[in-house]
Amino acid sequence: MIIVMETGATPKQVNDVVSRIKTLGLDAHLSEGEERTIVGVVGAPIPPTLDDEFESHGGVQQVVRITKKYKLTGWDFHPQKTVIRVRDVEIGGDEVTVIAGPCSVESEDQTVSTARAVKAAGATILRGGAHKPRTSPYEFRGLGRRGLEILATAREETGMPIITEVMTPADIDQVGQFTDIFQIGARNAQNYLLLEEVGKAGKPVMIKRGLSMMIEEWLLAAEYVMAQGNPDVILCERGVRTFEPLTRNTLDVSAVPVVRGMSHLPIFVDPSHAAGKRALVGSLALAGVAAGADGLMIEVHPNPDQALSDGAQSLTFDQFAELTPRIAAVAGAVGRSLCATGSLLGV
Amino acid sequence: MIIVMETGATPKQVNDVVSRIKTLGLDAHLSEGEERTIVGVVGAPIPPTLDDEFESHGGVQQVVRITKKYKLTGWDFHPQKTVIRVRDVEIGGDEVTVIAGPCSVESEDQTVSTARAVKAAGATILRGGAHKPRTSPYEFRGLGRRGLEILATAREETGMPIITEVMTPADIDQVGQFTDIFQIGARNAQNYLLLEEVGKAGKPVMIKRGLSMMIEEWLLAAEYVMAQGNPDVILCERGVRTFEPLTRNTLDVSAVPVVRGMSHLPIFVDPSHAAGKRALVGSLALAGVAAGADGLMIEVHPNPDQALSDGAQSLTFDQFAELTPRIAAVAGAVGRSLCATGSLLGV
Amino acid sequence: MIIVMETGATPKQVNDVVSRIKTLGLDAHLSEGEERTIVGVVGAPIPPTLDDEFESHGGVQQVVRITKKYKLTGWDFHPQKTVIRVRDVEIGGDEVTVIAGPCSVESEDQTVSTARAVKAAGATILRGGAHKPRTSPYEFRGLGRRGLEILATAREETGMPIITEVMTPADIDQVGQFTDIFQIGARNAQNYLLLEEVGKAGKPVMIKRGLSMMIEEWLLAAEYVMAQGNPDVILCERGVRTFEPLTRNTLDVSAVPVVRGMSHLPIFVDPSHAAGKRALVGSLALAGVAAGADGLMIEVHPNPDQALSDGAQSLTFDQFAELTPRIAAVAGAVGRSLCATGSLLGV
Amino acid sequence: MIIVMETGATPKQVNDVVSRIKTLGLDAHLSEGEERTIVGVVGAPIPPTLDDEFESHGGVQQVVRITKKYKLTGWDFHPQKTVIRVRDVEIGGDEVTVIAGPCSVESEDQTVSTARAVKAAGATILRGGAHKPRTSPYEFRGLGRRGLEILATAREETGMPIITEVMTPADIDQVGQFTDIFQIGARNAQNYLLLEEVGKAGKPVMIKRGLSMMIEEWLLAAEYVMAQGNPDVILCERGVRTFEPLTRNTLDVSAVPVVRGMSHLPIFVDPSHAAGKRALVGSLALAGVAAGADGLMIEVHPNPDQALSDGAQSLTFDQFAELTPRIAAVAGAVGRSLCATGSLLGV
Repeated sequence: MIIVMETGATPKQVNDVVSRIKTLGLDAHLSEGEERTIVGVVGAPIPPTLDDEFESHGGVQQVVRITKKYKLTGWDFHPQKTVIRVRDVEIGGDEVTVIAGPCSVESEDQTVSTARAVKAAGATILRGGAHKPRTSPYEFRGLGRRGLEILATAREETGMPIITEVMTPADIDQVGQFTDIFQIGARNAQNYLLLEEVGKAGKPVMIKRGLSMMIEEWLLAAEYVMAQGNPDVILCERGVRTFEPLTRNTLDVSAVPVVRGMSHLPIFVDPSHAAGKRALVGSLALAGVAAGADGLMIEVHPNPDQALSDGAQSLTFDQFAELTPRIAAVAGAVGRSLCATGSLLGV
Repeated sequence: MIIVMETGATPKQVNDVVSRIKTLGLDAHLSEGEERTIVGVVGAPIPPTLDDEFESHGGVQQVVRITKKYKLTGWDFHPQKTVIRVRDVEIGGDEVTVIAGPCSVESEDQTVSTARAVKAAGATILRGGAHKPRTSPYEFRGLGRRGLEILATAREETGMPIITEVMTPADIDQVGQFTDIFQIGARNAQNYLLLEEVGKAGKPVMIKRGLSMMIEEWLLAAEYVMAQGNPDVILCERGVRTFEPLTRNTLDVSAVPVVRGMSHLPIFVDPSHAAGKRALVGSLALAGVAAGADGLMIEVHPNPDQALSDGAQSLTFDQFAELTPRIAAVAGAVGRSLCATGSLLGV
Repeated sequence: MIIVMETGATPKQVNDVVSRIKTLGLDAHLSEGEERTIVGVVGAPIPPTLDDEFESHGGVQQVVRITKKYKLTGWDFHPQKTVIRVRDVEIGGDEVTVIAGPCSVESEDQTVSTARAVKAAGATILRGGAHKPRTSPYEFRGLGRRGLEILATAREETGMPIITEVMTPADIDQVGQFTDIFQIGARNAQNYLLLEEVGKAGKPVMIKRGLSMMIEEWLLAAEYVMAQGNPDVILCERGVRTFEPLTRNTLDVSAVPVVRGMSHLPIFVDPSHAAGKRALVGSLALAGVAAGADGLMIEVHPNPDQALSDGAQSLTFDQFAELTPRIAAVAGAVGRSLCATGSLLGV
Repeated sequence: MIIVMETGATPKQVNDVVSRIKTLGLDAHLSEGEERTIVGVVGAPIPPTLDDEFESHGGVQQVVRITKKYKLTGWDFHPQKTVIRVRDVEIGGDEVTVIAGPCSVESEDQTVSTARAVKAAGATILRGGAHKPRTSPYEFRGLGRRGLEILATAREETGMPIITEVMTPADIDQVGQFTDIFQIGARNAQNYLLLEEVGKAGKPVMIKRGLSMMIEEWLLAAEYVMAQGNPDVILCERGVRTFEPLTRNTLDVSAVPVVRGMSHLPIFVDPSHAAGKRALVGSLALAGVAAGADGLMIEVHPNPDQALSDGAQSLTFDQFAELTPRIAAVAGAVGRSLCATGSLLGV
């Protein structure tokens, strides 16, 4: 940490800063220039709130934290890219993974038929919501346990691993009995107790980016999970909130290379929630893969016009089947391939 | 709900829309103009996702929802302003209520001395965090139950009711044994299961606005609590996230009159979290009261430079004592008074 | 336009609305439901501010404008995609066009060498700033006329058409003597008099998106140019301003398919200004092409570390030469090709 | 400037940074710690783009600029608050100044009657648009020279100085013949050539904050004017663009104390453009004054429902007359008074 004193800081103010540093068992290194004094803080650990504290100290102009707040999620202590294996599917490796399925699990027929369709088109993981967060208390909130059972049936029928959202610590056990991957939704991305509890559950966790979450905060959310000893975290960009009304959210595609530069964790893109409109999903999916995403999460429904949630952004089976070869082509263009079980390539 | 068809919509597309409306047990009213057809949906209840569904229908240009999504929080079914009584303190009445106290409860001495100081200066409710949400897992997270006990002691010593945050459903019982008002933090403002559970706990609930929460979503969060039969909800604006780096958040002071126009619930302003810097807290507090806020929530600490959290934005005792008469003056200027127990006015 | 009256609107309030509509020479169509009255406005032209006016009328709940504010830029009156020919280069056709060059023209040597390098690597249009908008009055503002002469020399040497920014109406003549395409910068995207004047200058115009410009406003900026009889407008997404500090701006890649759905105009992506950091430029360029952009605008400099502006986001010659084959590959994957003069393909 | 090298930076990378600093005629001061090296740049002037340059240098982790980019607008070189005298009105002194008038000058009758009404209610400066920036080319754009003449007539009739917008350098002479204060609109706040030209015109200039302008950029816009030798600049906060749809813009009331802390220039608040809705204007005006604004700019129209622009946010004469005593009361509560010519106080 570097503390830049104001031009007019008094010797007493500088001394107060130095004393406070020493109180904490750290050392201070002074660099006295003609115009101002700069104090370097030497030693560790530096309390996480020390920059806040010094910023309001008398005579201090600016405080610069040099060390990163995140540790386990960064490259410094984990120089290999994280590759997660879920049943037969590898996430974060050379291949691009496509997760697809309905927003909500509505019935066994709807879910199993979607699973079959998306698998045939090249998806390798099935998504589906059993516990649904809804902005209004009067909307459909998912089938709960029955939804989880249906997802398990779809897994049996197709062999696809499943991912589903968990919304509260009390549901972790129940959801964990069924799911292969826990999903933390955007609105819970800074629900720290949920992150810690799910970190203890022994299964991979996907963390959607919060609607106005800075990327560093997102890595710190992942840090909450990893600090419980769970190394298998996936990040999923799903659009942030901006002033533009023509899309439900604004897909921050830059998050893909930015996260790659900061972290070894796999980074996915969810074009469906970002767009909020079916017609945009394909373009955003391709953009995500071109930017280097390790995977996509796409909503597909047998009859989107009658979906109980998010129908406007769900693709039909045909639309999804038309999209996956284009995803494969773009993946190929950036030196990757589509993770597929064979059916896509006609094997 | 009004469905505006595109200029070139085919009769079949119009019929499909009408059929779908009738399937739902609703009625359709057609208005066929020279350029386009407009379909009115008559009847109730209209499924909450129907606008989404129709927006992606063939031939539809635009869908306009006329009825509001929130009910219990709006003026339509509750034409009187909500006034909440917590022990001797009235919230949402003619007086402006000041809640003050430390960000985190750190010790009995720190908390009790703060309680005495803020009471003497005009605050009537004590705040203090026992369970703290922190961006990083490596920061101080509060004293937990011990913190709650300390708050209770401070209440005994001063007679001030207390408010403290609850972060997860499992903590509601414990926190409820001590607190007078539950606080839901900004990061949990769309943690719907927490909102529902706290709605059942039989005590007033303050909901901080989420960092990028639209005001309508905030009212729907309040709706989650009220739908459990709990009428005592307080809203608290504490700044939203924007591009401006010189403040921690951007205080949306317009939220005060906007909420007032939409809802009967008391609306507070938290200048401390909005500003993030002590030097701005006073101005934002006065702005909030001038805009019509029913109350303020201000962080005060005996020694802010050594606070375990949010020191940079906490006022000293002296700064707070210097601020409250100015708050009282502005309250007077807008036809209200500062809710005070006497000491302020020298009675 | 549809005017939704409040549930409790009085007959007088409805009549006032109807009278006002008739005063304007328009007709009103009433639809009186059980709960509320809805007024349709029939006829044209509807004054552009009428929705604002009615929104503050007594008894009005909501006003819905049905007709689009933009005309010339939309598909309705121009069902073919706009293709612009600048010397030998086609913009908006099947091929993806790459514009490249330095942020600022600094010297003949710097500009000509960059032109040769980017042409060899596959770019077909040269960019370079002679008049530079700078946040601070103390920064380098371009060589002015001398810069334009240098660009013209580079065009002679390489045959590449050139694009350069014009910042004020008084400079249009001078800039127009040299440039093939006028560029309107992001900070001038709502400088309406500049847009109109440049619309009269008889050359294609590229409009960068403003930092917080809604897409509809951007189309209206293009409308200002087109209303002068100039059909050759190119839109260029270059990132919008959000809360995320790790990128200079947030590239709104969704703007590509959204603009495509609304307008026949070519849409480009500028990954350099969006990212602000060299390491991100490649990924964003590929994302833009995958999303369907008609072209890219990329900053390249012989020695970025010593550039007089925007060095941090400029690619070296080698980095650009390494990137263009990847752009060509992604273009191929989405059914397009890189617009090239031969050198790239070894012809 | 401080350059923090990465932990793994090589001696060559450190040397390259030092060499580059020396090439610029500056000096480098090395502080080699156990973990990393920190390079201080000593001397002046530091090129404004040097931080960008070093941020992309090999081995550099972070660059910290210590000196501020703005000079003339800051307190360092101008420790007294700027007070501007326009005819009989003092701006930036102890009194709060209210500017009021119609959005657009529509007719002599409309403007003169408004001037009389707002003067009677306590305003001391008249606003009115003769050249109007409009999002769409098809909207009313003001009466131009005729509008300026009408404003001058209103000044003669009432004695109030006038403020009106200038949109392009070519209009400065014409507008300057009439106006007392030039207004630069939000969309032109980074139109640097306009700022420079208006800076030469020898009259006070009010700069509205751009829709997504950081406060530091705003001060730099003022710096453009002041660098021409014009010390009389007024800043006016009018709302920034956020995700919240219920207000036209989000009034950043914090800008008032933040600007006060950074600059000696007067800071105003425009509640009308921020709110976009008449019903909110009063609350925001009071909030601005409570936060410490030196003045307000409020739209008033004899018949807002039929205004040619911004009718929805304009107050009627009665509404304005009802508001000014409340403004005076809040001004009094924060130790100021309403700048009034006597009529308000019945003198």
